[in-house]
Amino acid sequence: MVLVLRTIDWDTDAVVIIDQTALPGRLRTLRLDTVDALVEAIRRLAVRGAPALGAAGALGVALTAREHGTASAEALATVRAEADRIACARPTAVNLRHGVERALALLEHGPDAVLADALAMLDEDERINRAASRHAADLLLRRCPDRPLRVLTHCNTGRLATVAWGTALGTVRHLHADGRLDVVLADETRPLLQGSRLTAWELADEGVPCRVLPDSAAAAAMARGMVDCVVVGADRVAANGDTANKIGTYGLAVVAAHHDLPFVVVATESTVDRSLPDGSGIVVEERGGEEITHLAGIPVAPEGTAVFNPAFDVTPVELVTAVVTENGVLAEGRPRKPVEGTRLTR
Amino acid sequence: MVLVLRTIDWDTDAVVIIDQTALPGRLRTLRLDTVDALVEAIRRLAVRGAPALGAAGALGVALTAREHGTASAEALATVRAEADRIACARPTAVNLRHGVERALALLEHGPDAVLADALAMLDEDERINRAASRHAADLLLRRCPDRPLRVLTHCNTGRLATVAWGTALGTVRHLHADGRLDVVLADETRPLLQGSRLTAWELADEGVPCRVLPDSAAAAAMARGMVDCVVVGADRVAANGDTANKIGTYGLAVVAAHHDLPFVVVATESTVDRSLPDGSGIVVEERGGEEITHLAGIPVAPEGTAVFNPAFDVTPVELVTAVVTENGVLAEGRPRKPVEGTRLTR
Repeated sequence: MVLVLRTIDWDTDAVVIIDQTALPGRLRTLRLDTVDALVEAIRRLAVRGAPALGAAGALGVALTAREHGTASAEALATVRAEADRIACARPTAVNLRHGVERALALLEHGPDAVLADALAMLDEDERINRAASRHAADLLLRRCPDRPLRVLTHCNTGRLATVAWGTALGTVRHLHADGRLDVVLADETRPLLQGSRLTAWELADEGVPCRVLPDSAAAAAMARGMVDCVVVGADRVAANGDTANKIGTYGLAVVAAHHDLPFVVVATESTVDRSLPDGSGIVVEERGGEEITHLAGIPVAPEGTAVFNPAFDVTPVELVTAVVTENGVLAEGRPRKPVEGTRLTR
Repeated sequence: MVLVLRTIDWDTDAVVIIDQTALPGRLRTLRLDTVDALVEAIRRLAVRGAPALGAAGALGVALTAREHGTASAEALATVRAEADRIACARPTAVNLRHGVERALALLEHGPDAVLADALAMLDEDERINRAASRHAADLLLRRCPDRPLRVLTHCNTGRLATVAWGTALGTVRHLHADGRLDVVLADETRPLLQGSRLTAWELADEGVPCRVLPDSAAAAAMARGMVDCVVVGADRVAANGDTANKIGTYGLAVVAAHHDLPFVVVATESTVDRSLPDGSGIVVEERGGEEITHLAGIPVAPEGTAVFNPAFDVTPVELVTAVVTENGVLAEGRPRKPVEGTRLTR
């Protein structure tokens, strides 16, 4: 067993990941040495988060290129078909396809070049994440200069969603390092609880104060004046700043706007899909009903219950204070209200 | 074992309830023949919902009056102390205290009179619920006359929350009986999943079409145009119409207002606390952290994780289309927008 410090890495002939479905109970690594195993791990969210999926896409192409070779037209066709299968494992995750395509562009240089570039992507990831989340932290500190911040976040956007640092949770890390963080309010993030299972685990691991709340309690927390700002990641950002992110993000944005609270999206440029002028073209995957009808294998709804279980929603840029990447502010949406808004007290 | 048709009833010397924590897996009844057992059942939500708690309060006083008698000052003092313990089992639930106080007012007539009145309360409940929910159904049909309605609801407000009919879910029943219901979108309602466990069970039991969704997906459903109106119950309503209800109601109201969708609160007059001019005086109970940190006994957050787990939130009447009781419209808040609002398409 290799010691894995990164969420996703490579070790002699296999992609190695931290199995995020086993957290917070167990820190377990998985060796994925076939495309089938990788696709299954992506589908069941054992590896997840936009940047980590980019790395998974590139490493997956390296895996199949090393298996089949790239010397013949037939081998290349096989590798391309396998690559497409990886890219389609989660259709909304644009980074996954980006990672796959970046790797495919190097196929002519042979499997070793593909692998070397995929490994370079891992190194790039931390640098890019640190830069994007620094921009977001600076923006929040300008907007909320008065005191250590109480930051509400959704889902997991930390090192488990990336390779080593994080986007929205990277912003939290910067604020903590700056001595400007009071507490993180982490939505538990139904149905797979990445907030309680992963975000709370990461923050506890680093000694950052954190409270977990049901997604439905975020609005009440804002109304009670417990929140200074909201920071989220993105699974896909359109050219105008419309943002697809974990289900629940859109509702948070509506409620944050109602309370005139800053709402910042932190993403990497690789998450921006400039082929989409706005969010209307983003395809939102619907996930299986069992995520809703069962808890830990136990039925919590009558047999045969129909569900609505979209993985993402799309937040129009008008509801977002700013979308920030490693290059700075990509889009600004909602302006601050010119006068103090009527803040509800509960 | 007595055959229980009602959610809560009386059977020779004991309060009998359907144990709502065992649904949807098992339809189990519990005999509660001590105040301790009753208080514990109320606390762990084995019996819940405003009207059912009113009945529980009255039957509980009958239970202790029959045990201790009402003939001496000492006995009366004991009964009053036990009654207070019942009333305090869930501080936000005004119906519980109302039921207790109604029963206490009859103590001088002896235990049998207390019990007879408590049983009369059970009979009243269905009639009052039918009337309140009829008013709400009529209001919705006037607001949305075009087609069978797609109704979003939160938590459980059906016969399991009352004695036999339901408030918000009673409205759904009327619409279904009128042939004017398309589908119910039932929020799963974290943390105790009363939506998936109880509402979906009740609706399936009666053949009413229903889809369960994570609480965080309700905003996306509204944005996609999947919702015609929102109907919720209430745990406590202030004189001006401000409404305390299951955590998540406030966020739903903000998002429904953003989408200009009717948002109707259905309550019984017993839920209205006219001693409170507005919602600012409503005490919101915070519940235990294990509801968030564990699922089916399995930890889903790191050990020692802090939580924010309020049972309720308070929705200001300005966000509510109308609060309706058995007497008709108690309060109207948000007017319809004079022109068609900008409806987001996702």
